Amino acid sequence: MTDPVGELQTILGPKGWLSGTDVEPYRRDWLNRYGVAPLGVARPANTAEVAAVVKACREAGVAVIPQGGNTGLCGGAVADQANAVIISLSRMTAIGEPDPESGSIAVDAGVVLATLHEALEPHGLMFPMHLGAEGSARIGGLIGTNAGGSQAFRYGMMQDLVLGLEVVTPNGEIWDGLRAVQKDNAGYQLRKLFCGAEGTLGIVTRAVLRLYPTPRQQASALLVMSDFAAAVSFGAFLRSEAGEFLAGLEFFSDVGLALALKHLQDLAYQLESRGDVYLLVELASGSTRVPLDEILNSALEWGMEQGLVTDGALANSGAQRAQFWRLREEQPEGQRLEGEQLKHDISVPPGAIARFIEAGTGLCNDILPGVRINPFGHLGDGNIHYNLSPPEGRSDFNGKAGAFAEALAALATKMGGSFAAEHGLGRAKIAMADRNRAPIERDLMARLKRAFDPRGTMNPGVLVRASQ
Amino acid sequence: MTDPVGELQTILGPKGWLSGTDVEPYRRDWLNRYGVAPLGVARPANTAEVAAVVKACREAGVAVIPQGGNTGLCGGAVADQANAVIISLSRMTAIGEPDPESGSIAVDAGVVLATLHEALEPHGLMFPMHLGAEGSARIGGLIGTNAGGSQAFRYGMMQDLVLGLEVVTPNGEIWDGLRAVQKDNAGYQLRKLFCGAEGTLGIVTRAVLRLYPTPRQQASALLVMSDFAAAVSFGAFLRSEAGEFLAGLEFFSDVGLALALKHLQDLAYQLESRGDVYLLVELASGSTRVPLDEILNSALEWGMEQGLVTDGALANSGAQRAQFWRLREEQPEGQRLEGEQLKHDISVPPGAIARFIEAGTGLCNDILPGVRINPFGHLGDGNIHYNLSPPEGRSDFNGKAGAFAEALAALATKMGGSFAAEHGLGRAKIAMADRNRAPIERDLMARLKRAFDPRGTMNPGVLVRASQ
Repeated sequence: MTDPVGELQTILGPKGWLSGTDVEPYRRDWLNRYGVAPLGVARPANTAEVAAVVKACREAGVAVIPQGGNTGLCGGAVADQANAVIISLSRMTAIGEPDPESGSIAVDAGVVLATLHEALEPHGLMFPMHLGAEGSARIGGLIGTNAGGSQAFRYGMMQDLVLGLEVVTPNGEIWDGLRAVQKDNAGYQLRKLFCGAEGTLGIVTRAVLRLYPTPRQQASALLVMSDFAAAVSFGAFLRSEAGEFLAGLEFFSDVGLALALKHLQDLAYQLESRGDVYLLVELASGSTRVPLDEILNSALEWGMEQGLVTDGALANSGAQRAQFWRLREEQPEGQRLEGEQLKHDISVPPGAIARFIEAGTGLCNDILPGVRINPFGHLGDGNIHYNLSPPEGRSDFNGKAGAFAEALAALATKMGGSFAAEHGLGRAKIAMADRNRAPIERDLMARLKRAFDPRGTMNPGVLVRASQ
Repeated sequence: MTDPVGELQTILGPKGWLSGTDVEPYRRDWLNRYGVAPLGVARPANTAEVAAVVKACREAGVAVIPQGGNTGLCGGAVADQANAVIISLSRMTAIGEPDPESGSIAVDAGVVLATLHEALEPHGLMFPMHLGAEGSARIGGLIGTNAGGSQAFRYGMMQDLVLGLEVVTPNGEIWDGLRAVQKDNAGYQLRKLFCGAEGTLGIVTRAVLRLYPTPRQQASALLVMSDFAAAVSFGAFLRSEAGEFLAGLEFFSDVGLALALKHLQDLAYQLESRGDVYLLVELASGSTRVPLDEILNSALEWGMEQGLVTDGALANSGAQRAQFWRLREEQPEGQRLEGEQLKHDISVPPGAIARFIEAGTGLCNDILPGVRINPFGHLGDGNIHYNLSPPEGRSDFNGKAGAFAEALAALATKMGGSFAAEHGLGRAKIAMADRNRAPIERDLMARLKRAFDPRGTMNPGVLVRASQ
């Protein structure tokens, strides 16, 4: 094994190579659970440099760890060994001209999601992906983790929004798959496969993304639901009555609302009554001829007649709409400020959400009586962030973190869902996948990994075990 | 090598094994271009029998060819050697109960698409895939070829509509990936990879599909456009004005209309004037509160003011709507009845459709002056069925079939599109893929193939060359 650092410095120049203490901002993951200091951080300026770095590392037997905004929650974008180089895509931030007639745009992997949103605004176009980390998360990482977010039930996950990709393969070749069409059946769906591969099969350097026209009007409501089953029934009703305009269908619980209101002083809850469950409903349309408010009001009235909705209000201004959304979006922050917490990224068939939450409550209380359960998330696709805080008066989980995670993963699996809905496996959930998925599934994944990366230098230890 | 026929007969019983002349209905492909008589046709009754057949064939070194409705256009579902067994999924036709709250249903691979549509009707649910062969095409084949059709621009292709899969792998193991959630990031997206793999990585035996509520109203219009560029501009306008309800955006040319009217006596064209290009627009909504007719009329008026639309009519009844659709759907049949034809399954970025058709016309006339060009297809996703008939008075293409195919494939590739948009590669387009795609892309596909099917017994000779 040669020392590759000199070669990397030559490839990258002084602006492209960080070492020593400069590595610190890149070293640890978002939740500060993973990350060993690597040889250095490469910050290539273009795809050719990415390819050259990958090739040099491969020849030197050095692991390569692609990193975008480093907002992942499963530790997939930091090193677990010193003999590694982090490749940060943060200098590759070019945004192409949007093509409004085709509904597409080409962007570099390092573009921050919120920056893309802003760039599209003057064109009357939108990229329909929204999630809490959008101010930091970069396109390449969002593709690598197949991000979902709050509009996935309508517009799809990242794999549904990617038309074309450019990828540097594990041996440093460049695959130019930058086509701009939805329909391309010329062989295996490589563009779909790289979405969610967590940088273990190659490094996404550029993508052609699907765009949609920006809606011209929207209507938002905050509703108090009688219980989770009511939220599920009401969600199904909305899908059939207003499915085309449904742009948001988010839920949270009173546990989470109370924590958010307790810790975030500027947060306001303006409805008259409280309940166990809240629903944030948003409709949007490109046509100004659709009576969105009337449709939403009428759905709300139906829900009240049926006893599903106990209170509710339509947003009467952009400011009120923003307040409604903040109640949902501050759920993680409120719980974080309360102290220790455990996050579980569950999905179940949307019709099974209430049953999952009820069964999960039983399991969690068996493990640690009084544990505070704060489920929130995306009703439309069954994605529940089933997060826990310690029982009132306790500051920890009495060493039961693993027991909670396993019980909830097994329950989601049994109900036809997933224990890794939108955050992926990373380093955090490989063992969980091995336990909850059949050996044949894990074996097929290991075969894939070996086929693309026989030397095992591309983000090793993420998604699949090398030995699998 | 042992003779596996006796073993297969034992596995399958008398109803499950066809040989001799009984093989005939399965032997040739839809276009009658491919197909050698195999050892026999296996018609397994369930997944376990599929697995047993695959295992027996693998051990005997016999090729396995999965076949659904055998409506594919690229020869991917028939044998190219005698030492092969066709596995027809046609006896596996169970349809589960739809889950309306989750929007999903589990079905066997042998279910005919139109049968699924009918089964869902009483539930107020729909599976949004429509294509000409829906009366014969089976779910497994539609998954294997990643079918698209006329609603793909809105609801996606098969890969976007599959939530979970059950697959028999090339070595006869069963992968149970029958989950029913959109969000499942627990590793590589195997469910997406098997879509479009054309049975070369395994045999799809069962699937969980995504369902949508049936719209409660629709509005359809047939429009005469001033030219292809006008059709593209008008399509982009509709996407921004009525994108949520746009359920159909199909185009065809006057060449195709004339052929259809000439050969199909019961076909009627009821607008006053003709033009070069026609657009079939359909809006649909789950809400009865949306003024669909008004929205469509107003778009039509705008199009006329802009000089894009020269004539048009809204369907005033279900019967008239059906007539409009038949004008589009009989395009292939009208051209078939005219005699020899060449089919090209192209996609380009939707905004580039008019440029492709213009440039293609130039190329084709250079190859054979006067060749009749009949482009029709899906405006929303840029999918052009760019089909040719010989020049007036000729009955053949003067041996130029290959020249047309190559010129159009190269043009589509250059414009960021695909020469295999929704029909796949099969046996017909492997060489074309090798010429039009970079070696690295074909190499990655060959690696995938070898990783899943190292012995090369699963649908060999389809999608990738064994030697690649």
